[in-house]
Amino acid sequence: MSEIRKNLITGEYVILAPERAKRPSDFECPVKHEAPPERVDNCPFCPGNEDKTPPHNYICPDAGAWTCRCIPNKFSALSSEGDMWRNEEGLKVVMAGVGRHEVVIETPYHNRCLAVLPDEAMKCYMSTCLHRFNAFYADPRVEHVILFKNHGAAAGTSLEHPHSQIVGLPMTPAQVRYRAQDACDYFDDKGSCLVCRTIEEEASDGRRVIMETDNFLAFIPYAALSPFHTWIFPKRHMPCFTAITGTELDELAVVLKTVLWKVYKGLCNPDYNYVIRSGAPSDCNADHLHWYVAIVPRVTKAAGFELGTGMYINPSIPEASAEFLRDVK
Amino acid sequence: MSEIRKNLITGEYVILAPERAKRPSDFECPVKHEAPPERVDNCPFCPGNEDKTPPHNYICPDAGAWTCRCIPNKFSALSSEGDMWRNEEGLKVVMAGVGRHEVVIETPYHNRCLAVLPDEAMKCYMSTCLHRFNAFYADPRVEHVILFKNHGAAAGTSLEHPHSQIVGLPMTPAQVRYRAQDACDYFDDKGSCLVCRTIEEEASDGRRVIMETDNFLAFIPYAALSPFHTWIFPKRHMPCFTAITGTELDELAVVLKTVLWKVYKGLCNPDYNYVIRSGAPSDCNADHLHWYVAIVPRVTKAAGFELGTGMYINPSIPEASAEFLRDVK
Repeated sequence: MSEIRKNLITGEYVILAPERAKRPSDFECPVKHEAPPERVDNCPFCPGNEDKTPPHNYICPDAGAWTCRCIPNKFSALSSEGDMWRNEEGLKVVMAGVGRHEVVIETPYHNRCLAVLPDEAMKCYMSTCLHRFNAFYADPRVEHVILFKNHGAAAGTSLEHPHSQIVGLPMTPAQVRYRAQDACDYFDDKGSCLVCRTIEEEASDGRRVIMETDNFLAFIPYAALSPFHTWIFPKRHMPCFTAITGTELDELAVVLKTVLWKVYKGLCNPDYNYVIRSGAPSDCNADHLHWYVAIVPRVTKAAGFELGTGMYINPSIPEASAEFLRDVK
Repeated sequence: MSEIRKNLITGEYVILAPERAKRPSDFECPVKHEAPPERVDNCPFCPGNEDKTPPHNYICPDAGAWTCRCIPNKFSALSSEGDMWRNEEGLKVVMAGVGRHEVVIETPYHNRCLAVLPDEAMKCYMSTCLHRFNAFYADPRVEHVILFKNHGAAAGTSLEHPHSQIVGLPMTPAQVRYRAQDACDYFDDKGSCLVCRTIEEEASDGRRVIMETDNFLAFIPYAALSPFHTWIFPKRHMPCFTAITGTELDELAVVLKTVLWKVYKGLCNPDYNYVIRSGAPSDCNADHLHWYVAIVPRVTKAAGFELGTGMYINPSIPEASAEFLRDVK
């Protein structure tokens, strides 16, 4: 019997379809990726090829060679130069596509994805992300910052060298506004942050938890949009990622890496996306906003149904997916 | 210089990124599909194999062999039996996954996709879709019906034989509700239907029009979410697809087929999704709702950015895409 669960945080319903359900191990990546070499001569992100990309905007302070660095995206979605403008003519609402778009080269090693990075390198990566979040928001044109990673072709990347991207938009996406409004309505009705409340419920229920630390809870949402869709929530109420402490950041590095390792190991290195969804620093006192990390392995494909409804069909059971990932050591 | 356009009907912003822009012909499907044979022995949707699927629920009335038929989906997302129920326990909101899910086998011929179907067969297909829309809404458990097609692997299909799907949900998707609310707000502010108003503006502007008939306008939206994203709007104000007349339905068959042919021919048979987005018959008197058809060729990939923001990056210019499709004869 199918059931439809509502994801209160995204606002959307998900069909859990047991008729289509598979065992968690059935989602293993069918393509066994050849391990690439440590360095690839013509890779623009490999050490020694720094002249093939624009100069870096930031490099993680380090004793020797670079560990993690940020460069402007050569194929930027937004123009880095120019002022903001807006125009409206009849139904044509348009504004300048100005803002920031950088690539975070996660590691000098071509063959070390986040899942297999040493803890220290992972901490460098996280502190680089935080630095760029702050730097982007310092640009007066930037209203909203999103950090994301596309791992593998199905997740939308064409370059193999491990990298993330960070975009500073000159406006706030409508989807972000809708969800914030729902969270605000929840706060007004219940007097608590929906994310804080979810952490309490999920931690005490336990069936969907993947791992828990002092400051973070990693779990499969009750209404996960796809198999192994995972959320990492900071336990402390924080609207914006930039409010994270050094201790929390180091802990997040380990939690994120551990979850990605479980996905990598349990599902044979599937393609995936991960994003940091956060409010802006100007939201820092909002009672209803709470940043988090979302990881979506690309083991199923969104198609016409998803396009036409905004809903998802999930052929897995969140509780079974969580148990599977919990058991990957 | 990038620009950000707002799609008033979907509510979302789209980044038009000329840094990434390509000529329309650059989006040609790189895989040259081998033309399959007219009939495939082990295809469950080919004539002679009717016993490999559940018995049909509907077959298009025809003089001889069947032209188009509907069968229950063997891997239904929803349970066809059972009553509706709802439950709420803390943050866990859940309901029965009951409803309808059928496959529309568009043609007996394994190798004739909609783009190359004769007009008469296309009209049979459209009248079958309309019949099933009505039949689904006659089920008291069904609140919202969506018809969609996944053409090709990138669009999410695994079966080659031309087919569409129709789902009758026991609830209305949140995305549908959000958009309806925006359309209602527009009506309240301006006193006109946003879709009717868009038809007037697009027809008189003309730069994004692909084709126009007495009753339909096919065009690339001003804020198209991806290259060749196309909308077909009925000119007469109609909240629900089920209100279409016989004349309009026949005309839609020809317009849809012509647009799909232009995509097929101009881009070498790319994968695509198409959906009919419609209100329910109970909305039939709504001043602010207006059904339409959306076609999304899968020539780019949604990735982490889209996942984290709900926005899209479109590396093409809608006006150039429309001109390209207009010119495909």
